Amino acid sequence: MIGSKWFLEFTTDKEASLHSLEEVLYTAQTRYQKLEILRLGSYGKTLVLDGKMQSTQLDEFIYHEALVHPALITHGHPRKVLIAGGGEGATIREVLRHPTVESVCMIDLDEEVVQACKAHLYEWHLGCFDDPRVKVLHEDARRFIAEGDGNFDVIILDLPEPMEAGPAIKLYTREFYNEVMEHLSPDGVMVTQATSVSVNNLNAFAIIHNTVEQVFPVVRGYWTSVPSFYVPWGFIYASNSKDPEGLSHKELTGKLEHLTAGLRFYNPEVHHGMFAMPQYLQDAIKDEQRVNTDTEPLSFY
Amino acid sequence: MIGSKWFLEFTTDKEASLHSLEEVLYTAQTRYQKLEILRLGSYGKTLVLDGKMQSTQLDEFIYHEALVHPALITHGHPRKVLIAGGGEGATIREVLRHPTVESVCMIDLDEEVVQACKAHLYEWHLGCFDDPRVKVLHEDARRFIAEGDGNFDVIILDLPEPMEAGPAIKLYTREFYNEVMEHLSPDGVMVTQATSVSVNNLNAFAIIHNTVEQVFPVVRGYWTSVPSFYVPWGFIYASNSKDPEGLSHKELTGKLEHLTAGLRFYNPEVHHGMFAMPQYLQDAIKDEQRVNTDTEPLSFY
Amino acid sequence: MIGSKWFLEFTTDKEASLHSLEEVLYTAQTRYQKLEILRLGSYGKTLVLDGKMQSTQLDEFIYHEALVHPALITHGHPRKVLIAGGGEGATIREVLRHPTVESVCMIDLDEEVVQACKAHLYEWHLGCFDDPRVKVLHEDARRFIAEGDGNFDVIILDLPEPMEAGPAIKLYTREFYNEVMEHLSPDGVMVTQATSVSVNNLNAFAIIHNTVEQVFPVVRGYWTSVPSFYVPWGFIYASNSKDPEGLSHKELTGKLEHLTAGLRFYNPEVHHGMFAMPQYLQDAIKDEQRVNTDTEPLSFY
Amino acid sequence: MIGSKWFLEFTTDKEASLHSLEEVLYTAQTRYQKLEILRLGSYGKTLVLDGKMQSTQLDEFIYHEALVHPALITHGHPRKVLIAGGGEGATIREVLRHPTVESVCMIDLDEEVVQACKAHLYEWHLGCFDDPRVKVLHEDARRFIAEGDGNFDVIILDLPEPMEAGPAIKLYTREFYNEVMEHLSPDGVMVTQATSVSVNNLNAFAIIHNTVEQVFPVVRGYWTSVPSFYVPWGFIYASNSKDPEGLSHKELTGKLEHLTAGLRFYNPEVHHGMFAMPQYLQDAIKDEQRVNTDTEPLSFY
Repeated sequence: MIGSKWFLEFTTDKEASLHSLEEVLYTAQTRYQKLEILRLGSYGKTLVLDGKMQSTQLDEFIYHEALVHPALITHGHPRKVLIAGGGEGATIREVLRHPTVESVCMIDLDEEVVQACKAHLYEWHLGCFDDPRVKVLHEDARRFIAEGDGNFDVIILDLPEPMEAGPAIKLYTREFYNEVMEHLSPDGVMVTQATSVSVNNLNAFAIIHNTVEQVFPVVRGYWTSVPSFYVPWGFIYASNSKDPEGLSHKELTGKLEHLTAGLRFYNPEVHHGMFAMPQYLQDAIKDEQRVNTDTEPLSFY
Repeated sequence: MIGSKWFLEFTTDKEASLHSLEEVLYTAQTRYQKLEILRLGSYGKTLVLDGKMQSTQLDEFIYHEALVHPALITHGHPRKVLIAGGGEGATIREVLRHPTVESVCMIDLDEEVVQACKAHLYEWHLGCFDDPRVKVLHEDARRFIAEGDGNFDVIILDLPEPMEAGPAIKLYTREFYNEVMEHLSPDGVMVTQATSVSVNNLNAFAIIHNTVEQVFPVVRGYWTSVPSFYVPWGFIYASNSKDPEGLSHKELTGKLEHLTAGLRFYNPEVHHGMFAMPQYLQDAIKDEQRVNTDTEPLSFY
Repeated sequence: MIGSKWFLEFTTDKEASLHSLEEVLYTAQTRYQKLEILRLGSYGKTLVLDGKMQSTQLDEFIYHEALVHPALITHGHPRKVLIAGGGEGATIREVLRHPTVESVCMIDLDEEVVQACKAHLYEWHLGCFDDPRVKVLHEDARRFIAEGDGNFDVIILDLPEPMEAGPAIKLYTREFYNEVMEHLSPDGVMVTQATSVSVNNLNAFAIIHNTVEQVFPVVRGYWTSVPSFYVPWGFIYASNSKDPEGLSHKELTGKLEHLTAGLRFYNPEVHHGMFAMPQYLQDAIKDEQRVNTDTEPLSFY
Repeated sequence: MIGSKWFLEFTTDKEASLHSLEEVLYTAQTRYQKLEILRLGSYGKTLVLDGKMQSTQLDEFIYHEALVHPALITHGHPRKVLIAGGGEGATIREVLRHPTVESVCMIDLDEEVVQACKAHLYEWHLGCFDDPRVKVLHEDARRFIAEGDGNFDVIILDLPEPMEAGPAIKLYTREFYNEVMEHLSPDGVMVTQATSVSVNNLNAFAIIHNTVEQVFPVVRGYWTSVPSFYVPWGFIYASNSKDPEGLSHKELTGKLEHLTAGLRFYNPEVHHGMFAMPQYLQDAIKDEQRVNTDTEPLSFY
């Protein structure tokens, strides 16, 4: 028998998904957005912001391991890490697996979201907000980076989608990436989530890729499949010097031995596998001329 | 404004997807199943059997290139190819890119589906049904293989899901894989589609993997993302001797030069990328003990 | 912006309705059925059993006033009233408006439903379960009637739909109506809810009407629109002697003056209006030959 | 098994309905609106404008008989009838049942809709567009009435909903009703469809009722249930002198004998039944103070 309660999300005006809704764990209207924490029959506990699924209990580990480890492993000895966004705490959780890390600063604008995640999404953060190396701020990430001391080894951009209307649009522009670069240590690394790489929705990824290339000499797009996102998902790695594809399988295996145990997705094979771009994606990146700028922010959708 | 006509598919009893329905191109009740050819706002023309999306105009190339090329490229000089299933004709299309191929025999039980695909899905088959190397039969694939002369260089199993009730369940058993092996040439290669590898639905893939391992010495699972399938999708390669992971990037590049132009997904990078298994998938395969047999066909779903 | 949480009910395999889901107030699996008390954006608090909407805060008064008052007003001086079903308590609420009523016995099989309604649906029962005239039993209604002392002035059948599989099927048969008649006082009155009278779903109503006519000399079908039920809804009044259509407007006005205030639907005009049958409904009743019996219970749906 | 193709309509932002979609008979973008003629599993052929169901094969007769006959029967000897709207032709069909009718003029702005209905909705119009008494114009109904000769016996307003943005809003104002009155014959009658009378959506009906009362001395609201509309539906009758409630059952029976056979809904009983207003509706009308005017058109929704 089909259930009676459903979560419905129109991902575009031509596509929607339905998930059986087992329980409403928490809802609130924060200063910035509508927040819902639901338990879905398909993916377990799920964080929903303004009606959009953000991450789910069953597969958040794929997204967060894919976001964090290629950057930190490639950097090699990250000590000071900045996270913009990342309210659930799972990005911090993955960063803290790296024993060289001395401080993690997370900036997430919406304090109410972070508080709700602390209270309801223990499976995501596993208590890591209480780790003495962690500091959480609720302010504008762009201003914090631009005005701060910088010298971060890794900056992780775990941001909402760059929808035209949202505040995150200014965290995907050339000017912002310049500010990021200036506040990285000389061998620092940046990684950003970079939206869908689905064959019917490639523009945003290609534009972000092209925009990052205006700023950083080493840029590597990569992707994986987070099932609850439906479409394959892209990430962009950038650095002054270090190339994640230059690491051998043996080097990766050695480096992974030092991490706190518990990886469920990331391993030496998928490290390389994620950087393998299908032909249509290589072509889309090559053909893309547009650059996202503060003065001319592209409307991706 | 949200459209008024929608395609709805319950992929499980806890999950469904909606796609805007632009046009109903053809519908029929065949002897075996309900057939619909629709135009969806999200993915263009789409083949639907018994309410389940089979392949779409926008991303069928990912599935079909991923299914065909790792096997044929690894084999190296395929001449005689058998396809079980594959009604749309796109599997034939990809096989014919390989210049060594002398004959392709496709066996698809449902003649009405094949006729409808010929008439309505030109973008899939591109007229390849008329190629003199191609022969199409409408009979039971298992009996055809068991009773035929065999000596196929490559057998491609492009089959419906192994649902308990469907006829395809007998094309995923140990006994069947034994028959496949006996009818391959000594250096022959088999590949099968192998259902979802999503974190919340791994059983079927792991069982099929384990079952194939009872029969073939070289077994390599691989996967990619076909966006319209939502979940990441698995394939299993098997052979007596040849290992797709043993090919170097240079060898692959050389081999691809001989193929008819037009690949949009497959390239040397994704060849290797697809074999990179996330940790949870490696673990699931390692832990799986069940074998799918004729006498005890497992109900995967 | 369209909400993210929805209540979905397939009313047939060709029709479904969606209501925005504001809050899940209570859910339980009782011994007999799945129980949900939801707050819907469209109709407020709603009782749902096995996925089917039963009654809603906004329009339950239409159903319950239409069910109760034609029978009690026509009877004229009801003292002893029996309700089969009616878990929400709103049927009792309406019965108690009649000052002649000395006792109301309600029999509802599912005690957990009644307890949940007491706790969560105050707007329905307004505390009437505590009225000293009220007695609530949890047992089989048919046996209670057949084995009891009877002599009820009014028997109200506020039952689930007569689905083939459900227990209520035995409360719509000729044999049951015979038992009802035998346990009514000589001038007693029976009324039953009688499912949809929609033009595309008339069979059940017509069959129940015909079945009641096998037993009672005076049978009057009537209907109204309860918006949350979507389709117009039927009721059947039956008696040995008293005809609800025989009451004049003046008589009705006089009788209504004695009722406890608070009617929101029922008045002298709608009393008569409800008995006005559209032509297609008159024809359906006239043409119906089938009788619902214990030995040959008709499957209406 | 649940079907794969569905018609989805959000009737409000809190409620939607799904109907299985059997066939897409015709779609077009006219100068004014999106037009779809679909075959639904629930209600057969259905006319859809801008995503909203207008009328269905199975129950259009209820709406059209309820709209036309109370007015024409009460008038008694209608010769000259004007219809504003009514593109399907079913309103004409019902008007032509009255043998006194000498001319029917229908004004529907959207010629493409009328042509599509002629071609695809024969069950609605039954060829009546070809009746020599019928004239169809495609122009602005309000200007036609204001500038024409008038002297109509009956004016039937078979209009789209008075949504704020739509063109029909000016056909529900006091000024328009004044123009209607001036162009009726002295004993002329007006009737308008008047939207939902559902308990959760009464405003529009009450405002229209109040507005008509500013102009006509005799105003009678009435309603019935057209199942595919979900909510009960209102109509408003107005005249200088003639009261539909003044007709006796015997008079009605006599008058109906002269109509062309084939009525499926309307009969003497429902004539009176439709004017019976539930208490909440009587109260809403009594309490309503707002008037819809050209200068201050109320946004009902």
